Amino acid sequence: MTISSFIPPQRTLMGPGPSDVSPRVLEALARPTIGHLDPEFIRMMEEMKTLLHYAFQTENALTLPVSAPGSAGMETCFVNLVEPGDKVVVCINGVFGGRMKQNVERCGATAVVVEDDWGNPVDIQKVEDALKQHPDTKIVAFVHAETSTGAQSDAEALVKLAHQHDCLAIVDAVTSLAGTPLKVDEWGIDAIYSGTQKCLSAPPGLSPVSFSERAAETIRNRKTAVQSWFLDLNLVMGYWGPAAKRAYHHTAPINNLYGLHEALVMLQEEGLENAWARHAYHHAALRAGIEAMGMGFVVDEAHRLPQLNAVTLPPGADDAEVRGRLLKDFSLEIGAGLGSLAGKVWRIGLMGHACNQRNVEFCLGALDTVLSEQKCDINAGVAVDAAQQFYANQPAAVKTA
Amino acid sequence: MTISSFIPPQRTLMGPGPSDVSPRVLEALARPTIGHLDPEFIRMMEEMKTLLHYAFQTENALTLPVSAPGSAGMETCFVNLVEPGDKVVVCINGVFGGRMKQNVERCGATAVVVEDDWGNPVDIQKVEDALKQHPDTKIVAFVHAETSTGAQSDAEALVKLAHQHDCLAIVDAVTSLAGTPLKVDEWGIDAIYSGTQKCLSAPPGLSPVSFSERAAETIRNRKTAVQSWFLDLNLVMGYWGPAAKRAYHHTAPINNLYGLHEALVMLQEEGLENAWARHAYHHAALRAGIEAMGMGFVVDEAHRLPQLNAVTLPPGADDAEVRGRLLKDFSLEIGAGLGSLAGKVWRIGLMGHACNQRNVEFCLGALDTVLSEQKCDINAGVAVDAAQQFYANQPAAVKTA
Repeated sequence: MTISSFIPPQRTLMGPGPSDVSPRVLEALARPTIGHLDPEFIRMMEEMKTLLHYAFQTENALTLPVSAPGSAGMETCFVNLVEPGDKVVVCINGVFGGRMKQNVERCGATAVVVEDDWGNPVDIQKVEDALKQHPDTKIVAFVHAETSTGAQSDAEALVKLAHQHDCLAIVDAVTSLAGTPLKVDEWGIDAIYSGTQKCLSAPPGLSPVSFSERAAETIRNRKTAVQSWFLDLNLVMGYWGPAAKRAYHHTAPINNLYGLHEALVMLQEEGLENAWARHAYHHAALRAGIEAMGMGFVVDEAHRLPQLNAVTLPPGADDAEVRGRLLKDFSLEIGAGLGSLAGKVWRIGLMGHACNQRNVEFCLGALDTVLSEQKCDINAGVAVDAAQQFYANQPAAVKTA
Repeated sequence: MTISSFIPPQRTLMGPGPSDVSPRVLEALARPTIGHLDPEFIRMMEEMKTLLHYAFQTENALTLPVSAPGSAGMETCFVNLVEPGDKVVVCINGVFGGRMKQNVERCGATAVVVEDDWGNPVDIQKVEDALKQHPDTKIVAFVHAETSTGAQSDAEALVKLAHQHDCLAIVDAVTSLAGTPLKVDEWGIDAIYSGTQKCLSAPPGLSPVSFSERAAETIRNRKTAVQSWFLDLNLVMGYWGPAAKRAYHHTAPINNLYGLHEALVMLQEEGLENAWARHAYHHAALRAGIEAMGMGFVVDEAHRLPQLNAVTLPPGADDAEVRGRLLKDFSLEIGAGLGSLAGKVWRIGLMGHACNQRNVEFCLGALDTVLSEQKCDINAGVAVDAAQQFYANQPAAVKTA
């Protein structure tokens, strides 16, 4: 059997990530590989840290891209900060909070779970109650933007609460980074991780992380060794720390880092505030179309993420059938529901490079066509018009990449 | 401060990895990103497993590329197979054996260390003695091809010995895969990990692994949870297992996988035996040049890796100065010594796409120039001739990519 080169189709990626990667970033991936200790690469690493400081709005020295996807960024935060016997308040309002609990328990620590219904933000009062009940808690962990539901929690308030109870705060910003306001230093976040394949629109495979000085101090003063050699920041910083002393720890994913660097340069060119505004703007247009069809959102408006739209299936719609038709006839990917929302919602991403007027209208038009053909109970033929009307009435104040 | 796109220099990579990546693989990296659950991507994943079966010479069902560099592949093997309280015989004859010991201890297990001098292969008698002394040993772990020294150990004999003592064998094949003979099924290897940036000449960032049915059974029957959520194969196989049931675990590094797929297609085109022969062939040419200069190798001929040549510095040579000149004047990277060999050796890689006549002659010529200018004690002006004479006398029996 002979296997040939793999030529992927050209999709429009409007699921929960990966999002469409711009040609500039794809082109950067293909630049010649150089060594992970090459002086030119080390210079690029310094730029990478500066660019990540900007994206995270932080001056944390301990800021770097972990050499693996977001799930490994999550694990980096937990295995470095949590020790056996610790107590961690974990807020669960979707898939990724549940994953945090798994991480805590695999560190030999106790997870105190604060649960909220999927689609709701984390309830701050419940977290406060848990902290009062468990005064020996060391860390509060929560998801800023739940990719499984599209709900945004109040990170600033949750971090403040954690600090009032002398806890560190670990924040999942996989889907929020570069999509909605996120201010690591102003909000006092102690440990944060993100992904590259959401609102940064770089290929998956890296996880930007950042740790406050207090968190870094906690890591340096651990009583036990970090259980992961690969993710042990005490070792990783020998490579990602001061440029003058850089030594081999593991071989960095060179070309993937080229891609992330380029995506971050593009973010810097657009401006972080402009990127946030762009996500809110096109979300409003998508919403106009979705609502014109008679469909609704899982998350209420006050806590809805612009970049991840969990839309309730209209009566008569077959989940897999519709997504299959969108992929086959329109080469358009939208996301399925996860966990308790499986089969009940679609997750329409408007992330990074994929967040633009063309995609909003294309997605609405494709949905309209497929749902109409399937005789679902929607207002047919009005969605694209509604979005176009939004755009006509509200000309973009920001550059819409 | 404004940061611009990063345009890396064009190097010739003849260090310990990454090795030169072919234009075909670089081009594959830049293909459009698609979703990690896209039917086309799932088809590609099946091909990937078939291609890895070929490269590893195995039919192990549990064969996949871990979504992170080789160090994470090492960790995947240890955290999945080792449980707290286990005993593991770890053979150390260079940097990477030492790293295995770290992994064992971070799993809460005991490492019984069998040490050999750097540059020597693992001494099988010593391993047997250790196994006799520790009859409760569960696993024997060793490095097939020590990247820090260029020494190759007898993997087949070591695995056989491990099995005689009812142990599993974990094998580090980061530098050996596709460079020297490696036969996972024939030799009965239970768990193996490799990297992409050595003799496969794909960019770093992935780690192909494979587990025998006996090892897979051991993982399924663990008494404790795998301490890493990200690397837990019981979970990862929900994504990399049978195509029909594939579900999200973490977001795969899509574009990096395009690159590895292309590199494996190229390996299949060349033929594994031809690739092994090519590495041996160009190593012999390099050796002719190195010896003509009057320089020698750290490892004796019987155990010397063709793809990783640890060459002793000639009298009068300043390690950093020479490597700096090679990089600056020739855009040529060779590797420094690690650990106890730091400052004493250079590591000249002839890996994958970088293993060809042009590179052998270029490297010898550059070394000759720089060492002569630095007035080191070498036979000047003869190295390239010696290699050319080798090539003239021994025309390649194999395609020399």
